[in-house]
Amino acid sequence: MPYSAYFDVASTVPPHPVARQALLAALEEGWADPTRLHREGRRARLLLDTAREAAAELIGCRPDELSFTSSGSRALHTGIAGALAGRRRVGRRLVISAVEHSAVLRAAEAHEAEGGTVVRMAPERTGRIEPGTVTDALTGDTALVCLQSANHEVGTEQPVIEAAETCRAAGVPLLVDAAQSLGRGTVPGAWSLLAASAHKWGGPAGVGMLVVRKGTRFVAPLPRDEREAGRAPGFPAVPQVVAAVAALRAVREEAVEADGRLRGLVDRIRERVPELVPDTEVVGDPVRRLPHLVTFSCLYVDGEALVHALDREGFAISSGSSCTSDTLEPSHVLRAMGVLSSGNVRVSLPTGTTGEEVDRFLDVLPRVVAGIRERYGAPPRTGGAQDARAGEARPDGGTEVTVDALGLVCPRPVIELARAMARVRPGGVVTVLADDGVAELDIRAWCHLREQEFLDEKPLGGDPAGAARAYRVRRTERPIPADDPAARRVPGTPPAGGPGSAGPHGDGLRP
Amino acid sequence: MPYSAYFDVASTVPPHPVARQALLAALEEGWADPTRLHREGRRARLLLDTAREAAAELIGCRPDELSFTSSGSRALHTGIAGALAGRRRVGRRLVISAVEHSAVLRAAEAHEAEGGTVVRMAPERTGRIEPGTVTDALTGDTALVCLQSANHEVGTEQPVIEAAETCRAAGVPLLVDAAQSLGRGTVPGAWSLLAASAHKWGGPAGVGMLVVRKGTRFVAPLPRDEREAGRAPGFPAVPQVVAAVAALRAVREEAVEADGRLRGLVDRIRERVPELVPDTEVVGDPVRRLPHLVTFSCLYVDGEALVHALDREGFAISSGSSCTSDTLEPSHVLRAMGVLSSGNVRVSLPTGTTGEEVDRFLDVLPRVVAGIRERYGAPPRTGGAQDARAGEARPDGGTEVTVDALGLVCPRPVIELARAMARVRPGGVVTVLADDGVAELDIRAWCHLREQEFLDEKPLGGDPAGAARAYRVRRTERPIPADDPAARRVPGTPPAGGPGSAGPHGDGLRP
Repeated sequence: MPYSAYFDVASTVPPHPVARQALLAALEEGWADPTRLHREGRRARLLLDTAREAAAELIGCRPDELSFTSSGSRALHTGIAGALAGRRRVGRRLVISAVEHSAVLRAAEAHEAEGGTVVRMAPERTGRIEPGTVTDALTGDTALVCLQSANHEVGTEQPVIEAAETCRAAGVPLLVDAAQSLGRGTVPGAWSLLAASAHKWGGPAGVGMLVVRKGTRFVAPLPRDEREAGRAPGFPAVPQVVAAVAALRAVREEAVEADGRLRGLVDRIRERVPELVPDTEVVGDPVRRLPHLVTFSCLYVDGEALVHALDREGFAISSGSSCTSDTLEPSHVLRAMGVLSSGNVRVSLPTGTTGEEVDRFLDVLPRVVAGIRERYGAPPRTGGAQDARAGEARPDGGTEVTVDALGLVCPRPVIELARAMARVRPGGVVTVLADDGVAELDIRAWCHLREQEFLDEKPLGGDPAGAARAYRVRRTERPIPADDPAARRVPGTPPAGGPGSAGPHGDGLRP
Repeated sequence: MPYSAYFDVASTVPPHPVARQALLAALEEGWADPTRLHREGRRARLLLDTAREAAAELIGCRPDELSFTSSGSRALHTGIAGALAGRRRVGRRLVISAVEHSAVLRAAEAHEAEGGTVVRMAPERTGRIEPGTVTDALTGDTALVCLQSANHEVGTEQPVIEAAETCRAAGVPLLVDAAQSLGRGTVPGAWSLLAASAHKWGGPAGVGMLVVRKGTRFVAPLPRDEREAGRAPGFPAVPQVVAAVAALRAVREEAVEADGRLRGLVDRIRERVPELVPDTEVVGDPVRRLPHLVTFSCLYVDGEALVHALDREGFAISSGSSCTSDTLEPSHVLRAMGVLSSGNVRVSLPTGTTGEEVDRFLDVLPRVVAGIRERYGAPPRTGGAQDARAGEARPDGGTEVTVDALGLVCPRPVIELARAMARVRPGGVVTVLADDGVAELDIRAWCHLREQEFLDEKPLGGDPAGAARAYRVRRTERPIPADDPAARRVPGTPPAGGPGSAGPHGDGLRP
């Protein structure tokens, strides 16, 4: 068995031993239809009712306010649709944060498709939604506000208490997506609806929770049946529900002692990574964050290559958006934050993580990143023969350089930019032609990191897809680090491995 | 441990040992997010893909035509909504049978709520939809036809092959609800969509299957994510899916040898029950039926009392509609068939049922039914002292009798009718005033059983609820059996136990 550390609990937490035991027991006792009147049915009914009471206590709601759904996404879909339908008379304006889970974004798109309006609140660069932003977003015709308790990609905690207060004062219901935090503690504040997902705390997959507080206008979407107050059609998975609630109680107790330690380990990563890996940006709020989660992005690297390389070293992490990893889209969260998206690494530590494991990760990471950068044509700092060619990067060069990065995918457009910037004199302008989806995000982020001036971007004619753009960047007086690896790249030398072989989104693993 | 035989597999089948083993193994290997690229994710992905291929082979479809949903109801809801959306240009006419599972009925009501049209095909008295009925229902603007492979309450098999042929010829997609039959064999015919539910064959709850054949126009309802071809949003429950498919393979093999034996046991029940229990109607098709399921109804008895009494004797059976047991509605299936709904018993035998268990059931049943009838004021045939009072039932009596059964719930209105009929002379007419939901159904069924003439029913004025009706029945020349227990009832004697104590829908068991 090779070394293996699972640092991806923000995706899903391995089943808790307590969950496995409870599931097995409930498979014996609670397999029957709880609406049946024979003893097997009554037994299942008893287990379901007991689980509902226990979960309600852990959430801080009444049992009759809680419905068990088939997933956190279903809880969000139903919660949003039901609350919007219940407030239809008031208005059809839905307010969400731009960094919500994709299930909230999809529900919002469905609302727009039906003629509703959606307002997406922009976060700070830390991913945090300022309370004032919520206040400003509220209008007389606002039907619902959705705000996560903490972000699933960068760990930033949101001001749920303040938002709930603002919403309550305005008479607008607040739905809280508590998927990332319910396993660590109750969600405070006067929220109206809450959604959660059991596999995020070590319960089995296939169990979500939807809380609709008494007094909240709610019309469950059709079709509905009589199960779970009409909010989750279909035969209930009693054994999984029992296991989910048993796991929630167990992890809550563990979190009390574990979270302080995890917070320290994450602080170590936040502090050491920028020191160990050049051209790296640690994102997310450094203080108001989940204890176990940290995300950073590395210039001139793509996240998928990083995931594979770290996996070979025995570390399971994820990159970009947990929920768009199947698509060519960059993470909507990182995009909304305006931070570097290429070379993104999300580390989320399980409760039992040791300092040794974190140190091993910090030991492996620099080598892994350097290796990928080299493959992309960014040689290691020990230049050797390549230093001789540094002359080709003419710092006394021209005032206008245009780089054709059309057809190149991240991180290569930004690598081309870095190379070109080294060839113009201060005040000079580099124009990058690119059609990669994340080019603008990464070029802006590069300018932010390098303190260079992003001038503008214009669409290029003649591109049917309309993705091609010209990005203009002016070189400031600020020196671009002479050791910028990208500046050392031998012009014309194709990087090892094309976009296909280890490109950011090439995916030989999926059928 | 008291004697216990679970005869309710049509509600749900206890988890198959193979399912439990597979679930445990997959909890170890397949808990991760299958869209993740690290080894844990790839392992889950491999398990999911393998399960999909195995299930597709057992269903008889391509793996990429199969989506795993969170329940059979969800599979039906999504399948129907998606097929209707895909055919929107053709028309908005949905054709279903009147005896479909309630999930299909709910989906149809949702379609109506959105302005669509629904045609409900009436079954024969056996519950069977004649192929000609499907042909007649097809029109140029029909978007979709839904037909179950076999009925969940009476076991009658539907002509899926013929229906599929008719639909194919007309270019209309056919959706087959295979929930009750997929565990026993593949569904033949050129159907376009198929839905199933794993807990119906011993898989875990929380796993449904939706097949959409290539070439079938389909637009999955919003919101949708990228999982399961956009047809089942939410984090996939890989361990449960693996267990569901393992169970399907196992029960398929067992069905080969078991179904012949079960058919024989059901034939024994079908033959013996009417002999052992007077005034009983065995419903459903005697030949074209599921091998393990039989349903019968007993006059002057209510189903819920029967469920409780048989439960005390160690037999778990269900009554009425599996899916409306929580409501005051009588089974929509029995209603559509026009058969007696009161005193309904559905027996569905597990694979391992022995002849001894069936004999024990046949030994217990007559005593149980007699006991309930006695409580409702229908004394056992050994009349004794009561026979002396038989004179009060004047067969040479009047020509017009009106019975006030307002406020009485089934089976009492029909008991009152039986009593009154014994008091009018042939040609005479009895008018029953009743406001119970199933009164008309049961009075008509009683007339059918007793070969008496149902004249008409009129609404009664002065009932705000509008449920009160007057039902007129004419006594034919056909003798009403002199031993009709109801005719022996002492007039004016209140039945033991009011509607509350053991009424058909009083439910002290549920919170």
